[in-house]
Amino acid sequence: MTLSDSPAAQVRAACSAAADAAPAWAALPLARRAALLRGLADALQSARDALVPLADEETHLGPARLTGELDRTCFQLRGFADQVDAGAPQPVQHDAAIPGSPPAGRPQLTRVRVPVGPVAMFAASNFPFAFSVLGGDTASALAAGCTVVVKAHPGHPRLSHALADIASACIAAQQLPVGLLQMVQGWSVEVGLALVRDPAIHAAAFTGSVRGGVALWREANARPRPIPFYGELGSINPVVALPEALARQGEALATQLAGSIALGCGQFCTSPGLLIVRDDDSGQGFVRQLTQALADTTPHAMLNTSIRAGFNAGVARLHGRAGVKTLLAAPARGVAPGPHLFATNAAGFLADTALHDEVFGPACLVVSVRDLQETLAVLQAVQGSLTVTLWGADDDTADNRRLVRAAQAIAGRVLFSGVPTGVAITAAQQHGGPWPSSTNAFSTSVGPAAMERFQRPVALQDAPVWLLDARGQA
Amino acid sequence: MTLSDSPAAQVRAACSAAADAAPAWAALPLARRAALLRGLADALQSARDALVPLADEETHLGPARLTGELDRTCFQLRGFADQVDAGAPQPVQHDAAIPGSPPAGRPQLTRVRVPVGPVAMFAASNFPFAFSVLGGDTASALAAGCTVVVKAHPGHPRLSHALADIASACIAAQQLPVGLLQMVQGWSVEVGLALVRDPAIHAAAFTGSVRGGVALWREANARPRPIPFYGELGSINPVVALPEALARQGEALATQLAGSIALGCGQFCTSPGLLIVRDDDSGQGFVRQLTQALADTTPHAMLNTSIRAGFNAGVARLHGRAGVKTLLAAPARGVAPGPHLFATNAAGFLADTALHDEVFGPACLVVSVRDLQETLAVLQAVQGSLTVTLWGADDDTADNRRLVRAAQAIAGRVLFSGVPTGVAITAAQQHGGPWPSSTNAFSTSVGPAAMERFQRPVALQDAPVWLLDARGQA
Repeated sequence: MTLSDSPAAQVRAACSAAADAAPAWAALPLARRAALLRGLADALQSARDALVPLADEETHLGPARLTGELDRTCFQLRGFADQVDAGAPQPVQHDAAIPGSPPAGRPQLTRVRVPVGPVAMFAASNFPFAFSVLGGDTASALAAGCTVVVKAHPGHPRLSHALADIASACIAAQQLPVGLLQMVQGWSVEVGLALVRDPAIHAAAFTGSVRGGVALWREANARPRPIPFYGELGSINPVVALPEALARQGEALATQLAGSIALGCGQFCTSPGLLIVRDDDSGQGFVRQLTQALADTTPHAMLNTSIRAGFNAGVARLHGRAGVKTLLAAPARGVAPGPHLFATNAAGFLADTALHDEVFGPACLVVSVRDLQETLAVLQAVQGSLTVTLWGADDDTADNRRLVRAAQAIAGRVLFSGVPTGVAITAAQQHGGPWPSSTNAFSTSVGPAAMERFQRPVALQDAPVWLLDARGQA
Repeated sequence: MTLSDSPAAQVRAACSAAADAAPAWAALPLARRAALLRGLADALQSARDALVPLADEETHLGPARLTGELDRTCFQLRGFADQVDAGAPQPVQHDAAIPGSPPAGRPQLTRVRVPVGPVAMFAASNFPFAFSVLGGDTASALAAGCTVVVKAHPGHPRLSHALADIASACIAAQQLPVGLLQMVQGWSVEVGLALVRDPAIHAAAFTGSVRGGVALWREANARPRPIPFYGELGSINPVVALPEALARQGEALATQLAGSIALGCGQFCTSPGLLIVRDDDSGQGFVRQLTQALADTTPHAMLNTSIRAGFNAGVARLHGRAGVKTLLAAPARGVAPGPHLFATNAAGFLADTALHDEVFGPACLVVSVRDLQETLAVLQAVQGSLTVTLWGADDDTADNRRLVRAAQAIAGRVLFSGVPTGVAITAAQQHGGPWPSSTNAFSTSVGPAAMERFQRPVALQDAPVWLLDARGQA
């Protein structure tokens, strides 16, 4: 498929259509919203046999992973449908009037949530189903009562069009406004910038690189009337392996960590890119086990040549750098890159901020530390990450409390077992961490709370009964 | 009192002290947090007889209003104490593990909230108690588990110091860390900029002008690591008076509206600056009543000469402007400005964006409209406001639904009776609207939800029991 940039007029037309459809979509009964979300899930599932091979051709992620991701996407759509059925998009906080003078006396107040309006959604390259045209951002915006303009990711254009066709058919079959879900496309940054600048757009959601996300976030803030920009960006995802955990199950953890580093060819925003171990026998033994386990992995081809070039550049940056030792530099196998492992110590890591950047792909940097102080200093230097994993911090000790506080200070999710790849879709999830891992660490892009990004609270004072009965939806 | 700018080193020292005290304050049991908030309220109340005259000398707001505002401030502090006692700062969403493969299978996940760290608080000129040193922003940040650096407003320096002394004594008496609440001061913008730039500051709250707030918001976003900036800025607060309401109780509404325009010499962010009425007999009659009622008000002196100069300039901007008629230009009485009323029509308002800006003080612009379409167009042109008031929209009609939607689209609070001045402190309150009335329309600076501005969600995966028992607070 030839991928041509959507011309400016087409971006404008898409945003305008989304704006036209917005009031009707916001005003429809929740049952209609839920029905669309379920209809999309059903249609996606029915088309699985055609979609998975198409996605594999365009992304090289493999049928097993892609089938799982399609299931995850249906699960997300149905999860939001359940939330909608339960009334979650229209929470009501009602305070009856209290006679008398303020501050104790007050009028009747009712806090509701209203959809913000059309949302710009930037599809990710590395999740062609789950964070693409019908992914979590689209599902949560639709559930919130907002219409959506998707910018298709140029890494999977044919799949994007197939998904948009499925959506259009569903929307038509349910006799909903066509403007509900629009799609634009383009390799050029101009398409994305035009989308974020469009006056009809009231919020934007993005999953991708720090560079791209920050550029769009700046644009969202430079508008005459800035809009919220929810960017889920890159992240180095430190794993702290304490001696207690390594003594108990070092070998199993090495295998598990190697698998997580190489999973999906390391193309996850939660891929562990930093391992912090003590500079002692347990740590050194674990690093040897990890090196071996990682050498045994066989990553598949990367998503596209530009991501591959980025990985090569990232690896080259570390290779031969002062204070950095290369533990593993497995050769590429055809189009697939080989896994890489590097090592430095705390002083080296703290002194060289270039080591703090994510290398997107199957690579990890081991930082050996002498004590808790150095561990805390390394975590603090990372600044913002989607996750921090703490292995062996299970006991209630002063040291572990300090570790937990340091992890919470920089991360949106703190794990006490397992690996950071794999983000469960559930109410307690928080996928979003301090800058630069997210542009808004107060929101999540996974789980039902993702809807809240697209709804603004409004207090109704002395509202008439009909409006209260409608939960504030006029 | 001579007010000297805090030198840069003093700002740095205050932020550093707040950072040092932050972990201890966050880790203290909630009962200690509540005790401090109550202690501050008690101390404030005990010092009322000294504080109110001092505040009156510096602000001219009068003893009655200032006594009420002090009571409101105590009510806020105690309200947050009650919230803290009820566990509100530490909500827990717990999802048990589900065995099996994803997406249905999942690990144990627990979503908690953690304090963001030291908060910079910019005191407002127009609420020397309720939005100043010990006001709602400080109370909500302390309740959230954050330490605070207040920038005192130079409009009431002696009162600010008296309040800071009360706070210090309370903090010392309760044997809490000194760094918990720091104060800096200055007329120069440099003090505020230094505060927002300081690396120890993790969020900022501001109540004041659009110009000042937007400048600080830009600075917060220009940091190497941007921080959330919660600015409550100016607002024009449209009042839509429909013929139904005017026929029923026009005269009473005119008196009420005039009182709201002149209240506190118009120095409220919720002061009604725009009245939208039909260009018919009912509307014209109402405007005559309003003009008379406003002429009968006697505003007191403004907060300071700079605000007075701003009011004079705003009034001069409207006076004699093409398409704008001056209905009332009461002369100043000594240091107090006279109330002003201007009129234009929808076409005039839509064509001249200078009419969309707030005039801070006792002035209002009447926009006469021919029909619903023009009403909707005028509301849309306002773009963002803390409030919109709809008088006479009580029946469930298609027109009223459109009005409510238009009001919700631009405001954080929609009133169906009464006037927008007076912001009740309650859970259903939303004090914050779309840009430019707030820099973050998703948050409120009044009510218990104000705490959420200073807490970030963190998901704990497979957390140990001790950490769950501590509601995620390590």
